[in-house]
Amino acid sequence: MTDIGRLVRDIADEMRGAEERGEVATYIPPLARIDPRQFGLCVVMADGEIHAAGDSEELFSIQSVSKVFALTQALGKVGDTLWRRVGREPSGTPFNSIVQLEREEGVPRNPFINAGALVVADINLAGHEPRVAIGELLRFMRYLADDDTIIIDEAVARAEQATGFRNIALANYMKAFGNITHPPELTLGVYFHQCAIAMSCRQLAMAGRFLMHGGFYEPGGPRVVSGQRARRINALMLTCGHYDASGDFAFRVGLPGKSGVGGGILAIAPGKAAIAVWSPGLNANGNSLLGTLALERLTEATGWSVFAR
Amino acid sequence: MTDIGRLVRDIADEMRGAEERGEVATYIPPLARIDPRQFGLCVVMADGEIHAAGDSEELFSIQSVSKVFALTQALGKVGDTLWRRVGREPSGTPFNSIVQLEREEGVPRNPFINAGALVVADINLAGHEPRVAIGELLRFMRYLADDDTIIIDEAVARAEQATGFRNIALANYMKAFGNITHPPELTLGVYFHQCAIAMSCRQLAMAGRFLMHGGFYEPGGPRVVSGQRARRINALMLTCGHYDASGDFAFRVGLPGKSGVGGGILAIAPGKAAIAVWSPGLNANGNSLLGTLALERLTEATGWSVFAR
Amino acid sequence: MTDIGRLVRDIADEMRGAEERGEVATYIPPLARIDPRQFGLCVVMADGEIHAAGDSEELFSIQSVSKVFALTQALGKVGDTLWRRVGREPSGTPFNSIVQLEREEGVPRNPFINAGALVVADINLAGHEPRVAIGELLRFMRYLADDDTIIIDEAVARAEQATGFRNIALANYMKAFGNITHPPELTLGVYFHQCAIAMSCRQLAMAGRFLMHGGFYEPGGPRVVSGQRARRINALMLTCGHYDASGDFAFRVGLPGKSGVGGGILAIAPGKAAIAVWSPGLNANGNSLLGTLALERLTEATGWSVFAR
Amino acid sequence: MTDIGRLVRDIADEMRGAEERGEVATYIPPLARIDPRQFGLCVVMADGEIHAAGDSEELFSIQSVSKVFALTQALGKVGDTLWRRVGREPSGTPFNSIVQLEREEGVPRNPFINAGALVVADINLAGHEPRVAIGELLRFMRYLADDDTIIIDEAVARAEQATGFRNIALANYMKAFGNITHPPELTLGVYFHQCAIAMSCRQLAMAGRFLMHGGFYEPGGPRVVSGQRARRINALMLTCGHYDASGDFAFRVGLPGKSGVGGGILAIAPGKAAIAVWSPGLNANGNSLLGTLALERLTEATGWSVFAR
Repeated sequence: MTDIGRLVRDIADEMRGAEERGEVATYIPPLARIDPRQFGLCVVMADGEIHAAGDSEELFSIQSVSKVFALTQALGKVGDTLWRRVGREPSGTPFNSIVQLEREEGVPRNPFINAGALVVADINLAGHEPRVAIGELLRFMRYLADDDTIIIDEAVARAEQATGFRNIALANYMKAFGNITHPPELTLGVYFHQCAIAMSCRQLAMAGRFLMHGGFYEPGGPRVVSGQRARRINALMLTCGHYDASGDFAFRVGLPGKSGVGGGILAIAPGKAAIAVWSPGLNANGNSLLGTLALERLTEATGWSVFAR
Repeated sequence: MTDIGRLVRDIADEMRGAEERGEVATYIPPLARIDPRQFGLCVVMADGEIHAAGDSEELFSIQSVSKVFALTQALGKVGDTLWRRVGREPSGTPFNSIVQLEREEGVPRNPFINAGALVVADINLAGHEPRVAIGELLRFMRYLADDDTIIIDEAVARAEQATGFRNIALANYMKAFGNITHPPELTLGVYFHQCAIAMSCRQLAMAGRFLMHGGFYEPGGPRVVSGQRARRINALMLTCGHYDASGDFAFRVGLPGKSGVGGGILAIAPGKAAIAVWSPGLNANGNSLLGTLALERLTEATGWSVFAR
Repeated sequence: MTDIGRLVRDIADEMRGAEERGEVATYIPPLARIDPRQFGLCVVMADGEIHAAGDSEELFSIQSVSKVFALTQALGKVGDTLWRRVGREPSGTPFNSIVQLEREEGVPRNPFINAGALVVADINLAGHEPRVAIGELLRFMRYLADDDTIIIDEAVARAEQATGFRNIALANYMKAFGNITHPPELTLGVYFHQCAIAMSCRQLAMAGRFLMHGGFYEPGGPRVVSGQRARRINALMLTCGHYDASGDFAFRVGLPGKSGVGGGILAIAPGKAAIAVWSPGLNANGNSLLGTLALERLTEATGWSVFAR
Repeated sequence: MTDIGRLVRDIADEMRGAEERGEVATYIPPLARIDPRQFGLCVVMADGEIHAAGDSEELFSIQSVSKVFALTQALGKVGDTLWRRVGREPSGTPFNSIVQLEREEGVPRNPFINAGALVVADINLAGHEPRVAIGELLRFMRYLADDDTIIIDEAVARAEQATGFRNIALANYMKAFGNITHPPELTLGVYFHQCAIAMSCRQLAMAGRFLMHGGFYEPGGPRVVSGQRARRINALMLTCGHYDASGDFAFRVGLPGKSGVGGGILAIAPGKAAIAVWSPGLNANGNSLLGTLALERLTEATGWSVFAR
C-alpha cells in the first residue's frame, strides 16, 4: 500500500527543484509580485488524516477555485433553477471568451468560466448588499475549512476591480440579455471579492472535504449538500474545471479539479481524498504548471483516478 | 446490496412502456426504418456475470460507438504521436462542426467528433487497402467481444457513402491542411464501414470489458492496453463522448460513455461494469433518449458514478 | 431631364400611404414613442437648390448617422494614424457583434459599427472633458449644416446611458485590449451624446454637402477635408454604412449612405446631391424601411447610382 | 485633361521597376512557375479607344475574375431567383472561410467567394454535361471580348482539380445543405475549368466593357444585360470583389473590381473605362500587389473613383 505521507513529501521535493515553473500571472500587481519558487501540497484523507508538504501553510489568492464554493452556495439558494441561467457544458474556447455568449444569447456555457461565475455571483447577491453576500460566502468557506481565520485580501480585490475590464464587459454584456439582474457593478463587486479570498493549501483541502464525502461535512457529520449534488459538482469540475484544458486535465490527472490563476488547484478523489496544491507559475493554458504535474504524479502513484478500476 | 439483474429488468420494463421515445435518425433509409419501440440493455459485471433485458440480442448499427475501438486500435499503431494530429478537448459545438477545424488549422478537437474519427481512420488505414484496415478493426471487435459473428452491415455502409457529404467535406478540408494522408475517398471508405458495424447490446458490453478492467481483456487475462491508456480512453469518453452534450451526460449519468446515432451507448463503470444500452429514438442532442435515461436510473440505483464516494 | 422637386414630392406621397412601415426601435422610451407614420425627405443639389417633402423639418435622433461626422472630426485630429486603431472592412456580422473584437484583439472592423465608433469617440475625447469633446462635435455639425439651432436631446442621451449595457460591454472589452485610452465611462459619455443629436432631414442633408462636393463646404467655399478624404469617407459609407446589410444597400440603392436606428439615412451622390431621408420604422436589418425604399426609387429615377454610367 | 495613354505607360514604367512585387501563388505548379517581373495594363475607354502598356498581351490565368462573367451568365439563366441560393453581403472573413456556411446553413454570403461561385457554377451546369456548361461560358467570354482565341489552360484546370481539397470540401458541405444540386464533382469540374481560362489584359478589359456601358455591349450595340443588372454587378464587385480586403480596395481605389489569384484584376469606371491589370505577385490579402497599386495611381490621376464628384 502506498505511504501517502511519504509520497506527498517526495512530490514536494521534486517540485521544489523543478527548473521549468511556468509564468506567474501579471495582470494585477499583487499577483505579479508572488515568488514563483513556492510550492505547497496538502492531502486530506477520507479518515481525516492530513498529509502536507512544502509551502502548504502559505496563503495564496484562490481566485477561480472560489467558483466551486460560490456555485455550491448558489445551488443552496435557488436549486436546479440555476441551470436556466447557466449551462453545464465545457466551453471549448478560452476562459474569457465572449463569443459563445453572443451565440447563446447571454447564457454562459458553465458556472466555471468567468461569465458563468458572474451569473452565480448575481444569484448569491440576491437583493443583498454586496458586502452581505460576500460575507455569507466567507462564513461558508470558514465553516467548510473549519477555520475562522480565512479572510479576503482587499488589495487583490481592489486591483481586480481596477483592471477587470474584461469581466466588466462580460457582466454588462449579459445584463444586455437580461441574465444579470443587479446593477453590473454590484455583481462585479461580489465576484471580485470572492476571487480575492486568501487561503492555504491546508485550508483549501479542508474546505473541499464535502465533495470527497458525498456531500457530508465529514464522515458521520452533517450534510452540506445531497449526494447527487456532490456528484454533480464533481462532474462539472471534471468537465469544465480547467477552462479549455479541462480535457487535458481529465486525460492526465483523472480527477475532478478546479484551478485558479493564483496557481491553486483543488482536486477531489471521491471517497478517498481532498487535495489542494499551489504553485504560482502557470502553463500556457493558465493553470498551475507544477500543480498539475504534482497531481499527475499523485494519481499515477495512488491509482486515485476516477477512471481507474 | 443492489440486485443488478432485477434492476436491469426493471429498467427495461420501464423503458418498454415509455411514451416519449425521441426521434429515430432519418438521414439514411436503413436507420430510418428501425422500429423505435425497441430497447435493450446489457451489463457485464467485473466478475463476468451478465445481466441483460429487453432487446439485448438485437443487432443495431453501432455508428459512433465504433470510434472508441478505432481509437484504441490507432493508439496501438502509433502511440501518443496520435495526439499531434488530434486534440483531446471537448468540442463545445455540434458534432459535425467544421468551424473549429478552420480556427485550429485542420486539427480536430478530439477523436470522438467526426473530424477526429476521420483522422483516426486515416491512421488505421496506414498504407493498407481500405478493406484490409476495416477487416483488422472487425477482427479486433470480434476478439474483444469474444464473438466471431460480428459483421458489417453493407447496406448501411453504402447508404452512408451515398449521403455522407458532410463527412466528405470534413475529410477534404483536413486534407487541405495535410491532416489526412491518404486520398480522402479511401479514408472515408474505412470510416463509413466502421460506422456500419452491427452489434447487439451483449456484444457491445462484452467488447467494452477491457475499459472496465484497467486495460486487461478480463481478470487474469491478457492486456489489451496499458492501465494508463485504459484510464485515458475512459477520460476521453467522459469529456467528449456525447458531442456537445458530454457535460450533461457526465452531470446526469456520471460514467464514461460513447453514443452513436443508431441509438446505442457504451458506458464504463471502471472496476465494476461494462454497460451497453440501445434504443433508436434520439434526444435533441442526437443521443439515445431512453438509453441516457436508463443509464441515469442505473447509476442512481447502483452508485456507480465515478463521481460518487 | 428629371424634375427632382416633383420626384421628391411623388416619393413622399407614395411613402406617406405605405402600409408596411417596419418597426420603430424600442430599446429606449424616447425612440419607442415616435409616431411611425412620419416620413421626410430632403435633397440638396450640387448647385445648392433644395428639394424637400413630407416631414422634412421634423427633428429626429440621428443616432449612428453621427458616426460619419465624428469620423471626419477624428481624422482631422489624428489623420490616417486612426487606421491603426480601427479597420476599414465590412463587418459581415450584426452591428453589435463582439465576436470579431475577440478574434481581432480589440480592433474594430470599421468606424461605423458601434465598437469602431467608440474608438472614434475616444480619439475625439483626446484628454478633454467629455462635454468639451461633444461641444466641439456639435459646433462642427452646426457649421456644416449652417444652422446654429442643432442641439442634443438630453432625454435620449440619458436613456442611452441607462440602458446601453452592450455598448458599455464593448468599451470595456476594448479597454482590456488597450484600444480605449480614457476611462470607459467618459468615452461612452461622448458616444451616447453624439448619438442623441437631433436634426431634421434638411439639416442633415445640408451637413452632408461636403461629401458631395469633394471635400469643399460648397462650390467655391472653403475645404472641410481633402478630396481624397471625402472620397474615402464615401467609400466607407458604401461598404460599411448599413452594418451587415451594406451589400444589400449598395446593390439596391447604389450610393454611399449611413443609417441610424432613429430611422434616418444620409446618402451622397458625389457631384450631384446630398440626401437625407427619415422614417422611424426599421426593416429586419435595423435600417429605415421606407427610407431605404425611397432612396431606391430616387436613384432608379435619377440614375444617380455611383455604379451607373 | 489627363493624357490617359501617357499615364498608362508611366504607370507601367513605374511598376516595371518596383522592388516589392509580392508573392506569386504557389498552390499549383503552373502558377508557381510564373515570372513575377511581369506587369500588364490595358484601359478601354468609353469611346472604344484602347491604351495598353507592359505585358498587356501576355496570357494569364484569370482565376476568380471569371466569377464576374459566370455570375452574369447565371443571372441570365435564372434571374433574381439566384439570390435565394447566394447572399450579396461582404464576407468579412478570409475568402475560403467555411465558418459562415455553417452559421448560414449552406448559403454563401456572396457570389464572389469560392462557395458562392460554386453555387453559381452549379446554376450554370443546369443539367448539362460539364463540358457543355464550360463551353457556353467560354463562348460568352469570346463574344464579350470580341476574340475567338480565348481558351482554357487545361494544365491549370488539371492542377486545380488535383489539389483543390478545400473547394471539394466547400461543394460537399453545401451539398449536405442541399445548395449544390448536381453531384459535387461535376459542379467542381465546371468551376475548376472556369478558373483556368487564360486571357490577356487586353482581352479582359474588352470583356468588361458591358459593365462600363450600363449593360450594352458597346455604345449603340446590343444589350448584354439590363442597366439595373450592370449597376448591381458593379455594386457587388465593389463590396465583395476582393474578399476580406474589399473595403480596403474601395477605400484606396474607389472602383468596382474583381481580383484573381493569378494576379489579374478587372476594374470598372462606369461610363468612363474598363480596366484590366495583371502582375503575378500577391499582397497579404491574396490580391495583386502591383495591380492594386497601379489602379490606385490611375484613379488618383484621373479622378475616376466612383466616390469622387
